[in-house]
Amino acid sequence: MKKLINDPADVVTEAIDGFGAAHSDIVVVSRGPLFVRRAGAPTPGRVALVSGGGSGHEPLHAGFVGHGMLSAAVPGPVFTSPTPDPIVAATQAVDGGAGVLYIVKNYTGDVLNFETAADLAEAEGITVETVVVDDDVAVKDSLFTAGRRGVAGTVVVEKIAGASAERGDDLAAVADVARRTNAATRSMGVALAAGTVPHAGQPGFTLADDEIEIGIGIHGEPGRERIPVEPVDAIVDRLLAAVVDDLGVRAGEKVLLFVNGMGGTPSMELYIAYRRAAEVLTAQGVEVSRSLVGDYVTSLEMQGMSITLTRLDDELTALWDAPVETAALRRGR
Amino acid sequence: MKKLINDPADVVTEAIDGFGAAHSDIVVVSRGPLFVRRAGAPTPGRVALVSGGGSGHEPLHAGFVGHGMLSAAVPGPVFTSPTPDPIVAATQAVDGGAGVLYIVKNYTGDVLNFETAADLAEAEGITVETVVVDDDVAVKDSLFTAGRRGVAGTVVVEKIAGASAERGDDLAAVADVARRTNAATRSMGVALAAGTVPHAGQPGFTLADDEIEIGIGIHGEPGRERIPVEPVDAIVDRLLAAVVDDLGVRAGEKVLLFVNGMGGTPSMELYIAYRRAAEVLTAQGVEVSRSLVGDYVTSLEMQGMSITLTRLDDELTALWDAPVETAALRRGR
Repeated sequence: MKKLINDPADVVTEAIDGFGAAHSDIVVVSRGPLFVRRAGAPTPGRVALVSGGGSGHEPLHAGFVGHGMLSAAVPGPVFTSPTPDPIVAATQAVDGGAGVLYIVKNYTGDVLNFETAADLAEAEGITVETVVVDDDVAVKDSLFTAGRRGVAGTVVVEKIAGASAERGDDLAAVADVARRTNAATRSMGVALAAGTVPHAGQPGFTLADDEIEIGIGIHGEPGRERIPVEPVDAIVDRLLAAVVDDLGVRAGEKVLLFVNGMGGTPSMELYIAYRRAAEVLTAQGVEVSRSLVGDYVTSLEMQGMSITLTRLDDELTALWDAPVETAALRRGR
Repeated sequence: MKKLINDPADVVTEAIDGFGAAHSDIVVVSRGPLFVRRAGAPTPGRVALVSGGGSGHEPLHAGFVGHGMLSAAVPGPVFTSPTPDPIVAATQAVDGGAGVLYIVKNYTGDVLNFETAADLAEAEGITVETVVVDDDVAVKDSLFTAGRRGVAGTVVVEKIAGASAERGDDLAAVADVARRTNAATRSMGVALAAGTVPHAGQPGFTLADDEIEIGIGIHGEPGRERIPVEPVDAIVDRLLAAVVDDLGVRAGEKVLLFVNGMGGTPSMELYIAYRRAAEVLTAQGVEVSRSLVGDYVTSLEMQGMSITLTRLDDELTALWDAPVETAALRRGR
């Protein structure tokens, strides 16, 4: 294993320390227990958003802490859920008296630990609502999940719910917007090569030189099938067909088209894939009214990508367009 | 070779088509000849900035076209300079009557082709100034270069010169700011593994399982030495010492610290490296007053990074902080 790291045991804390130092205008890092929150005091009466999960998916989640998006992010060890304690501490740090929304990717460990944290926070007098993101259409149940996995669509939920909180919606309304966004969002991914978890020291799975995995999970969990490598247009057609079918997108509707890199894929390849997906949707009469292309929900240095669609109405579009100022996503106020 | 591409001959045009479609609010793509320019007509009396070079370094350069940065970018084939024709066409498309600044990375092919383009544009009545970026301290001459190579510091020059043009400076002043920024900027990189040029079909170079290359070029040109892999703190210390020494940074000065990913390195590793570099500089009494961390000047999916320092004075800081709205770099107006 060659990596730009020191001791594998220190990767998460050292990375978060660097992140905090590089973005001290936006975030503050707590080291005991470990979480990242917005710089400045919570806004009284404003709903706060807390997300988190295993590390290794950067910029998710800490990269989305800031104005218009998350209030705090709680990173666990690589590919491992954070325990309830730091989640509760983050909740207390960002609560502005209007309650806290947890945005949780659907993995058994995350769901359980955020549930426990919610109970503990409620016992401290903080109202908590939880939205579980489950956008991955590849498989119904998976290695670490009951039901569908939560993958790249999490960014869309965090962005849109963050804008809802920022405009002053109450907790029930922010949770409703987040659930509506999740219900309007589907994703599916493909891997060409696995990433290596530092403390494991070897790639999470192995594919032959001419083989790709359709429907891969963001921890390398099995997808739908392993097939010989194809031109990217054919790969995009497979992913997109599964997503369009599951979401039931029809001609005349508007969508956000999000092509997400898994960490080790050149930008050029993501745009080639975007081009095909946009062409196919347009040919189907679906309007690609918003776009996002880049590494937003990664799997360390995995080579691969995912395609996400969110069906947009006027309200979701306005919330998507609202100003945001985080390390990984910025749009002018 | 596994890549998310169709025909290797089409990667550049397909990627640029996707880029143009995804960012149609910011850019317009010309397909004959191929270049990317800002959406909208040139601002009369405003200096225009044109850059370009071989593809495979995305988001450089097209990702930096937009308000506050480049007026146009001209992508060549992968790792190969664009010819003069598209450079001239881009120049004509963006000239607002106040002249055009070319920002050229110091590679022999790029320098020659931009020189020829400048002659042709001048013959059409457009005043052109050229700034050559040569920030890489690793080697004096290299495979494709006489003198030092131009690498990640190019982003800093493009950002700061773009802000100078945007505030209305004349061509001589914008060129002077660009040259001052280049003179204040040094970089050095390291590779763990090479990227694969699509039409070559195999990695550009090979390193042993325990070997890294210090001083690598962004096309995989040889660096200073190949050494056994070390903890990242030791690698950062090597790169930073070379950069600090060449730039002559002293206690009490302010710098921009830029840790650049080469395309295939997880975000987590870049922040671990940033953390060390910031610690070392701070211990030396150097103030890290601005930061940039991420994949900005890549080498396809190369695993590695580079460290760039720019010595900042008040004017360069203000220009760095000025609003920018491009696909790959945004900061609020």
